Amino acid sequence: MKRILIKIQFVGTNYSGWQIQPNATTIQGEVTRAIRMVCGTDVELEGCSRTDAGVSALGLMAHFDVDTRINPDTIYKAINTHLPPDIRVLSSKEVAPDFHARYDVKSKTYEYHFYESPIALPYYDALSTRINSPFDYEIARQACKVFLGTHDFAGFCNAKNNTSTTVRTIFDIDLERSNTGYCLRVTGDGFLYNMVRILAGTIIEVGQGKIDIANLTDILNSLDRSRAGDTAPARGLVLSEVRY
Amino acid sequence: MKRILIKIQFVGTNYSGWQIQPNATTIQGEVTRAIRMVCGTDVELEGCSRTDAGVSALGLMAHFDVDTRINPDTIYKAINTHLPPDIRVLSSKEVAPDFHARYDVKSKTYEYHFYESPIALPYYDALSTRINSPFDYEIARQACKVFLGTHDFAGFCNAKNNTSTTVRTIFDIDLERSNTGYCLRVTGDGFLYNMVRILAGTIIEVGQGKIDIANLTDILNSLDRSRAGDTAPARGLVLSEVRY
Repeated sequence: MKRILIKIQFVGTNYSGWQIQPNATTIQGEVTRAIRMVCGTDVELEGCSRTDAGVSALGLMAHFDVDTRINPDTIYKAINTHLPPDIRVLSSKEVAPDFHARYDVKSKTYEYHFYESPIALPYYDALSTRINSPFDYEIARQACKVFLGTHDFAGFCNAKNNTSTTVRTIFDIDLERSNTGYCLRVTGDGFLYNMVRILAGTIIEVGQGKIDIANLTDILNSLDRSRAGDTAPARGLVLSEVRY
Repeated sequence: MKRILIKIQFVGTNYSGWQIQPNATTIQGEVTRAIRMVCGTDVELEGCSRTDAGVSALGLMAHFDVDTRINPDTIYKAINTHLPPDIRVLSSKEVAPDFHARYDVKSKTYEYHFYESPIALPYYDALSTRINSPFDYEIARQACKVFLGTHDFAGFCNAKNNTSTTVRTIFDIDLERSNTGYCLRVTGDGFLYNMVRILAGTIIEVGQGKIDIANLTDILNSLDRSRAGDTAPARGLVLSEVRY
């Protein structure tokens, strides 16, 4: 038996998220099916994150155990022949039998892409979320700094979050501007359910003047979900990089 | 009768290009149908360019004549209610009755987006074309300079090109690098059939070492299509801006 770690890139638009569900097309479901086509057996595919419907990934990591003579370094090529074009396995390798794609994560980076326009722009809509004007980039960028470091993010997660602790550490967070809009890039040791989308929603609302930046530390420390910003839409969220 | 100029943004992936054709879904066809729904009459929609199948636009300009009491500055909002989400009219205004969306163009800017990877990357594929490694960005960037200015581009157009002259002026051309790949941006007084895609294909082949940059001026002056690079795929090409 070998434990194989794979890196998956996908555009989440047409999928009901990562996790296998009855009567829904999911990333985990599609990749598990492709592995079955290659290895002739059902595997348990453990992902590093359970991304929501509509969320994309540049490199989601997942592992599975399989008894195969196929070379672990090239098995991803065979898996790809059974995947739709919006899902691709970028690499594969054998890892130690006790390695775990989720528990062993040291840090993850997410990107949240959005653009500012009074009307929907089809070209931008493909991979990013629209926000209304006015949006003050400099203030929004400053707002990011409040979240740096170790905090209890109980007010920045969905009520369905069921982790044992809501304390997380953000190593890096910044808002970049490009000629197609804005990209919030955040790296942390882990993220609670909907945490990145609520961070994005809150930072966007600071930029729009709906939340006063002076109150942001209070809002974070209040641990009160109702005081943070709205959960930003899934489209625009991308799991960018996972480190072990 | 009023002449109305509109600015259209679309993702070309699901369309057979701009021009109305029997048994095909086209941008001109969809927008003409939407105008008919709003104005109750058929119009002749004259676009600034006849983009190929799969090509996108950030702002394609088009005009039509119509007898309507709807405010020309806001008619685009009504038109949008009859368009699919991957096509949007961004603005509309009344212009002089002798203004022409195609003949009066002073300059156009196209972008060609591509990325370098040994395998297809779904997230990048959405709006850009994949090229194989190795790719030398600096040499490709230098290659752009050869095309600056006024030249006979007979060797850089499809044989179906039917313009009276193949001389065109390129005002500006540069290759930019971003964290999602490369963007060739070229501004000129006009472009021959497939010209931007052949320029992109040629510049890419210089970067890949398939064409020697030292021969590029000769290749351009030879007026010989067979010496220029391949026509780069339609996906990745975006009509960015049109000036009058």
